[in-house]
Amino acid sequence: MLTDYQLLRIPGPTPIPPSVERAMTKPMIGHRGNETSQIIQNIKPKLKKVFGTEQDVMMLTGSGTSCLEAAIVNVVHPGDKVLVVATGVFGNRFTKICEAYQIDVEEFHVEWGTALDPEAVKAHVQANPEIKAVFSTYCETSTGVLNPVGRLAQAVHEVSEALVIIDGVSCMAGVETKMDEWGLDIVVTGAQKALMLPAGLGFVAASERAWKVIESNPKRGFYLDLTKYRDNLAKDSTPFTPALSLLFGLEQVLENLETEGLENVYARHRLMRDMTRAAFKALDVPLFTKDEDGSPTVTSLKPIDFDAEAFRKEIKGSFNLTVAGGQADLKGKIFRVGHMGYCAPTDVLQYLAAMEIALVKVGKKIQLGAGVAAAQQVYLEQTQQRELEGAK
Amino acid sequence: MLTDYQLLRIPGPTPIPPSVERAMTKPMIGHRGNETSQIIQNIKPKLKKVFGTEQDVMMLTGSGTSCLEAAIVNVVHPGDKVLVVATGVFGNRFTKICEAYQIDVEEFHVEWGTALDPEAVKAHVQANPEIKAVFSTYCETSTGVLNPVGRLAQAVHEVSEALVIIDGVSCMAGVETKMDEWGLDIVVTGAQKALMLPAGLGFVAASERAWKVIESNPKRGFYLDLTKYRDNLAKDSTPFTPALSLLFGLEQVLENLETEGLENVYARHRLMRDMTRAAFKALDVPLFTKDEDGSPTVTSLKPIDFDAEAFRKEIKGSFNLTVAGGQADLKGKIFRVGHMGYCAPTDVLQYLAAMEIALVKVGKKIQLGAGVAAAQQVYLEQTQQRELEGAK
Repeated sequence: MLTDYQLLRIPGPTPIPPSVERAMTKPMIGHRGNETSQIIQNIKPKLKKVFGTEQDVMMLTGSGTSCLEAAIVNVVHPGDKVLVVATGVFGNRFTKICEAYQIDVEEFHVEWGTALDPEAVKAHVQANPEIKAVFSTYCETSTGVLNPVGRLAQAVHEVSEALVIIDGVSCMAGVETKMDEWGLDIVVTGAQKALMLPAGLGFVAASERAWKVIESNPKRGFYLDLTKYRDNLAKDSTPFTPALSLLFGLEQVLENLETEGLENVYARHRLMRDMTRAAFKALDVPLFTKDEDGSPTVTSLKPIDFDAEAFRKEIKGSFNLTVAGGQADLKGKIFRVGHMGYCAPTDVLQYLAAMEIALVKVGKKIQLGAGVAAAQQVYLEQTQQRELEGAK
Repeated sequence: MLTDYQLLRIPGPTPIPPSVERAMTKPMIGHRGNETSQIIQNIKPKLKKVFGTEQDVMMLTGSGTSCLEAAIVNVVHPGDKVLVVATGVFGNRFTKICEAYQIDVEEFHVEWGTALDPEAVKAHVQANPEIKAVFSTYCETSTGVLNPVGRLAQAVHEVSEALVIIDGVSCMAGVETKMDEWGLDIVVTGAQKALMLPAGLGFVAASERAWKVIESNPKRGFYLDLTKYRDNLAKDSTPFTPALSLLFGLEQVLENLETEGLENVYARHRLMRDMTRAAFKALDVPLFTKDEDGSPTVTSLKPIDFDAEAFRKEIKGSFNLTVAGGQADLKGKIFRVGHMGYCAPTDVLQYLAAMEIALVKVGKKIQLGAGVAAAQQVYLEQTQQRELEGAK
């Protein structure tokens, strides 16, 4: 096989654009100097657009989990009751963090592969007024579901003072987020998904209501104390040493997103989702989620007439094409294709064409080219539609 | 469109593998020191395998044309008669260089898009015993023809003392070259094609017979005097300043080729050619060359029911996919797809899938997915065949 060649199509980390690779190799500078402040100043307004908020977006040197923990320790206390809407593995992550802080967690279970129902959560919250916060994932990476977090927040706020805290790690910057308009109280994301960076940077934004809760909380820890990040960010700085090369990269990523136009970025992700889903339907490989629940960033497939792991091994061995397997209860049962960040519709066509070959090799009866053709058809329809709408 | 994304599928320059990009960013070192000698020592045996020769392969800092000129000025003199077998634009390049040196050039014309016939050249050389050298291109980049240069050399040597001088720029390292076995006298190539490097390095090897001619030539110029390169190479050095970062890259490229295995590299290129040709046949887009003449590194298409330039504009505009147009008399009439170097079968499937969409957009009636399916079928057949043969 061609040496030094790979096709990385897992739901994060994702490939890094060359311009971002280059930016990250810039020489080190002092992180307390003017140059770093300039970068932070440049980053701030652009990150706000990704979050859909007027609030400053704080940057933590850490993985997404550090930000989830920050979202928890800053607003709830030992003994507080919270509700975790668990739609998969990453919903459970919230529970584990809460348990480490002796927080009284209740899990609201949603069948894996299905999006949460805002009205059902609303009814539960209404019946349990002691709930201080409701946690949910925007995109549930382990299943490929995009949860309607905007409608969730609206529903919860109608009946409760609980904060709505959202893990947006595996979709933000690939899917539109309107934090302020939707009433999300804390939103968290990481670097290594649709933001096209290596892991190591986490992002958190908090609503005015969340800030009131945070400020009235006397025990916010130290490294994850969000007021430190907020106060330093106001001075274009960070409370602790920033991952400087990741900031260089982030500055470039945000410039690239602006060049493409966020609307176009989101449309590209929807297109890639729809191409992928149409292809697997044409190939008779069952999708794990309903169309209306499918995330624009990751698609899960649940084969019935071939082995998911044998298929993953085949595409890895023949093409060095990597997709993710299932996690926890879904281990060995599904495979998950990431299509986010530095991924174009032509990359979708590429992995589909390679996967068709692998399907034949693992013994599935398909018509070669049928999945690609279905995806091409979707491409033609959606781009024509967008041209009619006058998109750039 | 996704920012900072491109698909470069022209017949050179070609994409650079990431490991080679990284190698080229190594810090500068003194080019007269031990470290550079070590690199040259490491490169030498591996380059010989690419050329299929026991002779040392000289490295010039210059483009392929500098090596073509070196091949000429070192062996022929003003007034000498030479034959240029012209199968396209790059055959003509030899003529222009010869004319600059007042060499008596005769062109042996072969219809563009067709490979040379060794027997016809042999008859001509036999009838013109004053011919001192016969020039030909191995892969004629402008048409996508792979000339049978081995059979040409054998045929010429049967009837003449003329040296056989081959331009291998657009195929070597993607197509097997057996310089010694075939009796090629001078072979030239460049960095920016199947060798996966940026342009700026040229390579020349000469047979023992050619060396006798070179040594007896009193006027070899200065920068292009091959004896200088040979004598320095024997001491693991270069006569003039080498393009050091390209040497760093070359060392990595040769290591990558060795990792894949040259036999596998050549099989991959034949596979990519056959996939491409099968696809365009299925799509009813006429190939410009016969199957037996088609190069494993570049394929030319001559559309009859759509405009080649409109098609190129479409794939560029929609996908940032670049293929080459026609040159000279073929301008606007053909388009040329490069599939060499850092290009995998999955990249072939990718450009074919994108091109099918573009064919629809320029108004050609095709069945979406049909070209991809034909290429997938070829992939399955050839890889199965190679597995049966026990290839690694």
